[in-house]
Amino acid sequence: MPEPLRLGIAGLGTVGTGVVRIVQRHAKLLEARSGRPISISAISARSRDKDRGVRLDSYAWEDDPVALARRSDVDVFVELMGGADGPAKAATEAAIATGKDVVTANKAMLAHHGHALALAAEDAGRVIRFEASVAGGIPVIKALTEGLAGNAITRVMGVMNGTCNFILTKMQHEGLTYDAVFDEAAKLGYLEADPKLDVGGIDAGHKLALLAAIAFGTQVAFDDMELEGIERITIEDIELAADMGYRIKLLGVAQMTGRGLEQRMSPCLVPDNSPLGQLESATNMVVLEGDSVGQIVLRGPGAGEGPTASAVMGDVVDIARGFRLPIFGQPAASLTKAKPSRASIPAPYYLRMKLQDKPGALAKIAAVLGDAGISIDRMRQYGHTDPTAPVLIVTHKTSRSALETAIAGMTKTSVLVGEPVAIRIEAV
Amino acid sequence: MPEPLRLGIAGLGTVGTGVVRIVQRHAKLLEARSGRPISISAISARSRDKDRGVRLDSYAWEDDPVALARRSDVDVFVELMGGADGPAKAATEAAIATGKDVVTANKAMLAHHGHALALAAEDAGRVIRFEASVAGGIPVIKALTEGLAGNAITRVMGVMNGTCNFILTKMQHEGLTYDAVFDEAAKLGYLEADPKLDVGGIDAGHKLALLAAIAFGTQVAFDDMELEGIERITIEDIELAADMGYRIKLLGVAQMTGRGLEQRMSPCLVPDNSPLGQLESATNMVVLEGDSVGQIVLRGPGAGEGPTASAVMGDVVDIARGFRLPIFGQPAASLTKAKPSRASIPAPYYLRMKLQDKPGALAKIAAVLGDAGISIDRMRQYGHTDPTAPVLIVTHKTSRSALETAIAGMTKTSVLVGEPVAIRIEAV
Repeated sequence: MPEPLRLGIAGLGTVGTGVVRIVQRHAKLLEARSGRPISISAISARSRDKDRGVRLDSYAWEDDPVALARRSDVDVFVELMGGADGPAKAATEAAIATGKDVVTANKAMLAHHGHALALAAEDAGRVIRFEASVAGGIPVIKALTEGLAGNAITRVMGVMNGTCNFILTKMQHEGLTYDAVFDEAAKLGYLEADPKLDVGGIDAGHKLALLAAIAFGTQVAFDDMELEGIERITIEDIELAADMGYRIKLLGVAQMTGRGLEQRMSPCLVPDNSPLGQLESATNMVVLEGDSVGQIVLRGPGAGEGPTASAVMGDVVDIARGFRLPIFGQPAASLTKAKPSRASIPAPYYLRMKLQDKPGALAKIAAVLGDAGISIDRMRQYGHTDPTAPVLIVTHKTSRSALETAIAGMTKTSVLVGEPVAIRIEAV
Repeated sequence: MPEPLRLGIAGLGTVGTGVVRIVQRHAKLLEARSGRPISISAISARSRDKDRGVRLDSYAWEDDPVALARRSDVDVFVELMGGADGPAKAATEAAIATGKDVVTANKAMLAHHGHALALAAEDAGRVIRFEASVAGGIPVIKALTEGLAGNAITRVMGVMNGTCNFILTKMQHEGLTYDAVFDEAAKLGYLEADPKLDVGGIDAGHKLALLAAIAFGTQVAFDDMELEGIERITIEDIELAADMGYRIKLLGVAQMTGRGLEQRMSPCLVPDNSPLGQLESATNMVVLEGDSVGQIVLRGPGAGEGPTASAVMGDVVDIARGFRLPIFGQPAASLTKAKPSRASIPAPYYLRMKLQDKPGALAKIAAVLGDAGISIDRMRQYGHTDPTAPVLIVTHKTSRSALETAIAGMTKTSVLVGEPVAIRIEAV
């Protein structure tokens, strides 16, 4: 009779409760697949008395997650509390120090401390697995770290914050303003306590930073990421982009370039007939590109009890099966510190502006673009009743610096009303 | 210095050559990720002298793949010859018998002999990995066996033959007949030597049988699969289906029902705005559904040198990392023999027929459907110049047996011209 793999679960929110539910419901299935039983020794959460709809009385209780992590009857510490620092980090460190493997859904902790934790874990001969921290139920860490291990990864992209995609697609379908849909998302409980984590792109940025580290063999570098949220996206931009055959997505892109590692989490235009363009509501999508495999697209639920608990249990079964690999796919000590690069890859841009309705206004703007070496792919001037003319330009591929030069030049002309809006068009 | 993992590669077609190329090009990357070097000891192929654009002179040569499989300087036998029986099977058995792990892209061999080979391998403590045999570069075996190991799998679906999807989407976009596009696919080299393997659904059926065994913990049962190819799909059906908002796909569906295991590889209608409906050309897509995760969709190249070699190398790196798991995700001796069930799950159907253009003809057909307990969701009669009226009916959900009763009843009326065409509409 093989020894059971014994879990200690810290955090009994929806995900923690979901994990307990799977362990209870699928005991036989998990044992058949793992070659050993999977059991729960102890749990820890903020409130002991809350009714979570699942029986917990056969598990030991710890008020302190650090004490849970140190228990001798725990083989795997399952960290589902969240938070970049504080108890989650303290308990994870305690687990590693006392010889436990760790499974976590905590993207913030790993985005900020992943490299240090990986070094500590590998030093101690332990693994940290974090499938649940990126794109919920989609086994994307596994696909990237293991399935595509024979590839030099060329690019990783993803729509990895369901709330942002919900807001953007809802704005489009119902012609609503950002503020209106934001309020609805808040009412539905879709937003983090600090909404900036969602709509500011931070949560999705954490996820992209983890994927980039695996993809390019580099130390997690969330602080080097170019980060822009969706707060400034207007219904006008969504509708004009749609008119040109595009959708606006909060898109993460990580790519190793000749100048360094480029990591961007920002609103981008993507073609409306691409898989990313067709992604609706809170669903997540990750695109992995490798030199041999070409392009792989993974789509699925990015959050919620079942999907996230599924990802946690995938990691648990891997550990039960004896799979051991470096935290980021190669030894942490061998991960390089990537030089950050900002938008060095040329791209077409969407430019929206308002011009004074005077003869020669458009010619001036076109001249400024030409002077910056930017050629125009498509231009539309829309009908208007007020004295400013809405103008939309799609450029050919250009560098960011040329674009910035052009925008500075436009601002100096006397014909521009307000600031122009520039959004990158990503080739997907 | 860790010991290298030494490969013996049998078969140097595009995939085998691709594997050699990756091992040579990415030696450092593979070593960093695997924790040990990956080397090639020996190779075997039909022709020794053919120029494959890759250097082979540092590897030992074996004319006989069985001799290659038995070599003492080989740790992993990489079987890329193909064929359900013959040398591929003999060499795989020899590899297992002499203590090697096996990586193969051979869906036919595993669909027919997978259970026996898994029993033999597990008896000998060896693994057989076959990511490359299903959906090319998409790491779907890994996602299903490992990533979703915490789920009871509820349904597996897939478009897994690129040639069929190429033919069907090309027919639609260009309004061409099946025969015309079949000839073009043949000229492009898209078809197997025996085209029936592709267009008859056999190749895709092999793949589905492997996924079903993993998903439901059952012995591979390709012979129990309901199999229908795309040969009878007409451009008329494609266009009429499109008119109703559907696409026709060669879709595999495996599902465990109260009556047994249902495995179907057959043309189905799927909504044109679903991920499966939007799948164009030779790309593959697999949909995995589990009780916790909900639905995961994986999309990518289903064939070709790079993608298939990528999948082979994913398996090789797993073995180098020391990952060991049962061939079908749980011990072969524990896999149950599933009772086969045929289309027991009710579904809506697309029905196309030609009626004599007489008063009351449509009423008779509607009455036959009503008598069989089938209600009509939508019906269209198209304009026509000849004396027969094309009629299209989309039914509400009905059992296959009720549908067969209705079709028999229609045939007995005097109003039907020719045979009606019935195609299942799969809820995706």
